[in-house]
Amino acid sequence: MSMKVTPREEDYSRWYTDVVLKAELADYAPVRGCMIIRPYGYALWENIQETLDAKFRATGHKNAYFPLFIPESFLAKEEEHVEGFAPQLAVVTHGGGKKLEEPLIVRPTSETIINAMFAKWIRSWRDLPLLINQWCNVVRWELRTRLFLRTLEFLWQEGHTAHATAEEAEEEARRILELYREFAEKEMAIPVIVGRKSESEKFAGAVHTYALEAMMQDRKALQAGTSHFLGQNFAKAFEITYQTRGNRLEYVWQTSWGLSTRVIGAIIMVHGDDQGLILPPRLAPIQVVIVPIWRSDKQEAEVRKAVEGVKDGLGGVRYEFDDRETYTPGWKFNEWEQKGVPLRIEIGPRDVGKRQVVLVRRDTGEKSIAPLEGLKGRIEASLEEVQKNLYRRALAFREENSYQVDDYEEFRRILEGPGGFLWAHWCGSAECEAKIKEETKATIRAIPFQEEEGGRCIRCGETSIQRVVFAKAY
Amino acid sequence: MSMKVTPREEDYSRWYTDVVLKAELADYAPVRGCMIIRPYGYALWENIQETLDAKFRATGHKNAYFPLFIPESFLAKEEEHVEGFAPQLAVVTHGGGKKLEEPLIVRPTSETIINAMFAKWIRSWRDLPLLINQWCNVVRWELRTRLFLRTLEFLWQEGHTAHATAEEAEEEARRILELYREFAEKEMAIPVIVGRKSESEKFAGAVHTYALEAMMQDRKALQAGTSHFLGQNFAKAFEITYQTRGNRLEYVWQTSWGLSTRVIGAIIMVHGDDQGLILPPRLAPIQVVIVPIWRSDKQEAEVRKAVEGVKDGLGGVRYEFDDRETYTPGWKFNEWEQKGVPLRIEIGPRDVGKRQVVLVRRDTGEKSIAPLEGLKGRIEASLEEVQKNLYRRALAFREENSYQVDDYEEFRRILEGPGGFLWAHWCGSAECEAKIKEETKATIRAIPFQEEEGGRCIRCGETSIQRVVFAKAY
Repeated sequence: MSMKVTPREEDYSRWYTDVVLKAELADYAPVRGCMIIRPYGYALWENIQETLDAKFRATGHKNAYFPLFIPESFLAKEEEHVEGFAPQLAVVTHGGGKKLEEPLIVRPTSETIINAMFAKWIRSWRDLPLLINQWCNVVRWELRTRLFLRTLEFLWQEGHTAHATAEEAEEEARRILELYREFAEKEMAIPVIVGRKSESEKFAGAVHTYALEAMMQDRKALQAGTSHFLGQNFAKAFEITYQTRGNRLEYVWQTSWGLSTRVIGAIIMVHGDDQGLILPPRLAPIQVVIVPIWRSDKQEAEVRKAVEGVKDGLGGVRYEFDDRETYTPGWKFNEWEQKGVPLRIEIGPRDVGKRQVVLVRRDTGEKSIAPLEGLKGRIEASLEEVQKNLYRRALAFREENSYQVDDYEEFRRILEGPGGFLWAHWCGSAECEAKIKEETKATIRAIPFQEEEGGRCIRCGETSIQRVVFAKAY
Repeated sequence: MSMKVTPREEDYSRWYTDVVLKAELADYAPVRGCMIIRPYGYALWENIQETLDAKFRATGHKNAYFPLFIPESFLAKEEEHVEGFAPQLAVVTHGGGKKLEEPLIVRPTSETIINAMFAKWIRSWRDLPLLINQWCNVVRWELRTRLFLRTLEFLWQEGHTAHATAEEAEEEARRILELYREFAEKEMAIPVIVGRKSESEKFAGAVHTYALEAMMQDRKALQAGTSHFLGQNFAKAFEITYQTRGNRLEYVWQTSWGLSTRVIGAIIMVHGDDQGLILPPRLAPIQVVIVPIWRSDKQEAEVRKAVEGVKDGLGGVRYEFDDRETYTPGWKFNEWEQKGVPLRIEIGPRDVGKRQVVLVRRDTGEKSIAPLEGLKGRIEASLEEVQKNLYRRALAFREENSYQVDDYEEFRRILEGPGGFLWAHWCGSAECEAKIKEETKATIRAIPFQEEEGGRCIRCGETSIQRVVFAKAY
């Protein structure tokens, strides 16, 4: 833990891995492509879960649990869906010492098994809307994996809903997108661009996919959550019908949406610095660490007494008192900086005499003196200030690295050089999209919701009705 | 939902399934042996999780997450462990369209993968004790399955700890057993017998296993949680060593312990009646249901206004206001009884005039009038009374069906007849244990912690130092 992380400028990819390992967020598993989420990383995930779960509940969703295994035949029922996921499947062929008659797929997502149940549970308009969420693990067989960003198994939530009309389903898909956006910006302190995906980037089986895109510090995009309008694709594949008030039998309209442990990768890459992790206070497992300083037993007694007073006053703040004997204060400062704790309280004998503590912000390194009197208010205000500053900083970085581009040579130059988000016109054809990807490695990250603006496709010069966002992506 | 459940006397097994399905706790999955935990059942599991999780945290444990897949070779490292689990494994042989070089096991429990990591993380006495818990899904290939009681996949928590000394590990195993006992008795309202398992019933890989045993209404036993002292078995298999303060290298001492969604089966079978489910108030997702009664728009307006007052006064109580239009009050009463909601509030126009409501207890069916004034206190007291009564009732039932038996003919007669818990002497030999099981289907459920009492083995007549508890079991 005492060694430094690789600087970002030197090797961004190694910097990322160093931060994850040194902060003890996760570790490599002895199974290829899998990871262990260590207690500190899992506590972060639990805070993410708790915050999102409250939002899902407040909008009428209920949690449930569906099986890990999906019969191979189920997956095949929705044609685009099976095509999209076939290369990524883990297959159970043996159980209880015998070969299975039908192999079982380890869920890569649960549309098929959940919709098989929806077909059974939904009878009439009274059963709609049906708003279900599931917290679980899923498996997608990836070749190149990275801690949190891409692992064979990951944790996520997946929402699955059924509605009486297309309008209601569309409204739900947009409501969740907005809920995710609010979560990303307010809780993770990450500014995001929301928009629709192109046909080639949408979810396998969806009519259209909405997503959140965030810019990492290497100027690449990371998708931080998706919300799909499924139309009646799965309803028709699984015969999910309901009796209307007027006694007709109709297919339901559906959505699905998910957010995964991948967002922890986004938090790391958006906020971290060359000292290590920086966590947004609202989600940080430890918001404040108290590091005491003493050189004698007498000093220890005084400082400990003062710390008790500080702790009593911190009700509601998530703090840790680090009184480990075998480490020096300096070693501890470094460790908690690597772990990204937003605020540090230092307290030594001189501070006790003056009835004060030293406050150190992780985001700016700024030190200040805070009187014991009214400390809690001061700390809460500082946490809020760190939260806002992280957001402001990330937003400024994204703005500095976003470009309106109308010339393909400039477009390529930026992508070969610094990289960034390129707002450019696109004719809407899959062909231009594919050529751009081939020539620059950039993909369309989002077709933003915005005013139309006439223009010419950056690749072919055909007419375009709006700019879309291109970037290289994780 | 309107149909009745099969009476217990007619067919206990069908009664159980009826209760699960009608209460909408769970449903059969389209995958053999798997189940769907529906929102109402999952909310119950979430309450169980929340309560246990707080207890684990308060005793210093931290949550983490380990991979679903375990390399086949890992499982083989602890000899007894692999022998115990081999017949129950689900095996992934293909991933990403290719045959895997080494098959992966879907975790039946995580000892092996967690201990592989412990070997990496534990270096010195400073790292001990290491107290980890995991909430996750596990898979055991079962042939005969029943909702909640025995399914291919189930949800659970598994604790895994490492300690410097045998004494500390033993203390931990007993601390958790006590924590489980308190949870069972105080929260689930289920009296349990705690004790040690015999050699033939212990966990594969443990030195000894402690467990909780509860009596169901068909007088069979159900194991509701286990805590294992693992000694150094896994430490030696996985080379988990630490440097002592005195600079020697030693193996750690370990425990593991688990409690699963199976306990939901116990709640159902201990408390339910011929109307359906009865939930202990402390864990019930809905503690109070408010059913309004009206026959005109004017009455509806009055009653709704009164209900708003009732709701405002119920802060902290988990309630639901059932104002669905398409069902009669009688239909609703029946539905909420089947769902086991501990307390019902009925409120009609006459009650509004008298500033009162009608309270109905689910456990006894008892009706009483409660003034609106001070309603919250009254409801909290009633919930507490229901909680206590469920425990008392279950304890009385167990006592009525427990026998001290010294004669093998009587032993067999009871097991062939009513069944129950038989406290009998046993010589300690695996042979007598096996014969008794073969002849009566009863197994040793627990070797209780208690004063020694000399006697003669019920089967062979050899000397015995204490009575053990025999019963048929789930």
